[in-house]
Amino acid sequence: SPSIKLAVIPGDGIGQEVVAEGLKVLSAVLPQNVKLETKEFDFGARRYHATGETLTDADLDALKAHDAILLGAIGDPSVPSGVLERGFLLKLRFAFDHHVNLRPSKLLPGVATPLAGQPEIDFVVVREGTEGPYTGNGGTIRKGTEHEVATEVSVNTAYGVERVVRDAFARAQARPRRKLALIHKNNVLTFAGHLWTNVFNKVAEEYPEVTTEYMHVDAATIYLVTQPERFDVIVTDNLFGDIITDLAAAVSGGIGVAASGNINPSGEFPSMFEPVHGSAPDIAGQGKADPTATVLSVALLLRHLGYEAEAARIEDAVSADLGERAGEPARSTSEIGDALAGRVAG
Amino acid sequence: SPSIKLAVIPGDGIGQEVVAEGLKVLSAVLPQNVKLETKEFDFGARRYHATGETLTDADLDALKAHDAILLGAIGDPSVPSGVLERGFLLKLRFAFDHHVNLRPSKLLPGVATPLAGQPEIDFVVVREGTEGPYTGNGGTIRKGTEHEVATEVSVNTAYGVERVVRDAFARAQARPRRKLALIHKNNVLTFAGHLWTNVFNKVAEEYPEVTTEYMHVDAATIYLVTQPERFDVIVTDNLFGDIITDLAAAVSGGIGVAASGNINPSGEFPSMFEPVHGSAPDIAGQGKADPTATVLSVALLLRHLGYEAEAARIEDAVSADLGERAGEPARSTSEIGDALAGRVAG
Ligand SMILES: CC(C)[C@H](C(=O)O)[C@@H](O)C(=O)O
Ligand SMILES: CC(C)[C@H](C(=O)O)[C@@H](O)C(=O)O
Repeated sequence: SPSIKLAVIPGDGIGQEVVAEGLKVLSAVLPQNVKLETKEFDFGARRYHATGETLTDADLDALKAHDAILLGAIGDPSVPSGVLERGFLLKLRFAFDHHVNLRPSKLLPGVATPLAGQPEIDFVVVREGTEGPYTGNGGTIRKGTEHEVATEVSVNTAYGVERVVRDAFARAQARPRRKLALIHKNNVLTFAGHLWTNVFNKVAEEYPEVTTEYMHVDAATIYLVTQPERFDVIVTDNLFGDIITDLAAAVSGGIGVAASGNINPSGEFPSMFEPVHGSAPDIAGQGKADPTATVLSVALLLRHLGYEAEAARIEDAVSADLGERAGEPARSTSEIGDALAGRVAG
Repeated sequence: SPSIKLAVIPGDGIGQEVVAEGLKVLSAVLPQNVKLETKEFDFGARRYHATGETLTDADLDALKAHDAILLGAIGDPSVPSGVLERGFLLKLRFAFDHHVNLRPSKLLPGVATPLAGQPEIDFVVVREGTEGPYTGNGGTIRKGTEHEVATEVSVNTAYGVERVVRDAFARAQARPRRKLALIHKNNVLTFAGHLWTNVFNKVAEEYPEVTTEYMHVDAATIYLVTQPERFDVIVTDNLFGDIITDLAAAVSGGIGVAASGNINPSGEFPSMFEPVHGSAPDIAGQGKADPTATVLSVALLLRHLGYEAEAARIEDAVSADLGERAGEPARSTSEIGDALAGRVAG
């Protein structure tokens, strides 16, 4: 009988709380005959303070033995900035070659947006996950002196750009509107920009049905608030993708509902699914966190593993729940999880 | 008697039209005894096509002999992406050491914003203008092959960061709210991020009255649409500044009203003032362009040259004009310029 071996990383802050609800909904939606095996991993600030470790080779081996990973959030003010981000989150994305960072943005009915009117927002950002300015290349000389020089090197390869651009074209081709926008800054970052643009234009020839456009990242931030309905699929570099997906989340219901997948399409390594929001230490442990983004990340996880019907059931449940929730007093983390679990089971 | 020697670069697209109105308002606002000498320079796409030149050493020498520069817009689809941006705009910013790129955002009464409600927006972004990912460092190997590698190097120096951070603290200190936010991505770009953060924290000790905060650039895009009233002064790197100032312009009335200054505070080279919008070739020559951003750039120019009362008169005129304009049919470029010139002269 089918089974899912799931690695679970609750992590820091609200991570624990939201992951518990994600698992609740996952259990509720899965058919009886699917065996769900979960293994919890204690990564994050606590482990770092106790052992100095963020993610060891043995950890990577242990994670590798799973079909997928569900992550809550990693990060705590007690840990210097960068230690867990580079030492855990990015290390994992790079080690498992999560080059497709998938971030859908959909403004669901009844959900508040900071934008005037109620624009129709339904697009997905395909963010490159293993290159660009995120590689950790660079360095510092004369640190701490008035002559310090610090560099950051954005590394872009035809191999890395082409595979993510192909993934984005395939996604655009499969959607009704068949539109794909490349976002970069090719008028200033001409070396990387020309590589991205040339690869994009080359692959476009194989997808005559996909309507393409190019947009500078600065202009894209304008369109995201003035014409978000314009977008269908977006493909972009690691850093630009980081920036515009937070903005996209903000305009399409907030980071309380923004899901993401760090995907290794070849299946050589398990893919990882996580809410876009961080660990939010200020509200941790109070049952205030919205688990919706984690629940939607579970839907992405199920779709990735081939459970399309179950993924859609979760998304429908979230949509119905948000629609009815409007105007009600805020519910606790577990109340929302219970409501969603009830809907998908029903 | 006092005089202003002004270099005027109308440039491409709507640049010609908006600069004409900027000069109209400038002439109207200046006291009778101030002698305004303007010299026009024919930079941009036309000259590039005719001569292959973008900005020569002789051009730089000629520009240098002025007190300030007023620029319309440079850029045209007939020129390959990057040629005029790197060969003219950025070359000029670097040659004249325009390290303070000043971009105020103020939502004026009666002005439409894509945000719901009518938030109080009044902040200024101090964007570094001569370092970061804009230096043109980097390169390409195996161009056009499947083994191409393209790099972009962000270069950050203690010297460059400290001077712009100091400028931002001084501005924050002089404003009623005295708040300064550093925006970066120091949890991922740790080399540059730590330099920026350390310099910022060091200078902060000299400004105990300024309230500081640090924000990642992705989070900043969220706050810019959900809590824009939170910001007073922002200091940030060249690329992050490029991105967030377009977003800031979008939420505070659109790029039709976004002004900017490329400032060399030492006065060793003339500073340059320009609207944030580009050349907008699609509406060029039709009298549709809004010259307000250029007129507000003229105000920044006057303030930089010490004409504070005249700068304030222009800003008051724009404010009054926008307040009364609301709901009226669109006016032409020159109608708006005439209205503003009339107000400042009055
Ligand atoms: C925490 C940080 C490393 C991460 C990123 O920059 O990718 C986060 O902002 C995200 O978007 O997942
Ligand atoms: C045109 C381009 C070089 C420029 C920049 O990126 O700085 C523009 O976007 C701006 O913000 O002034």
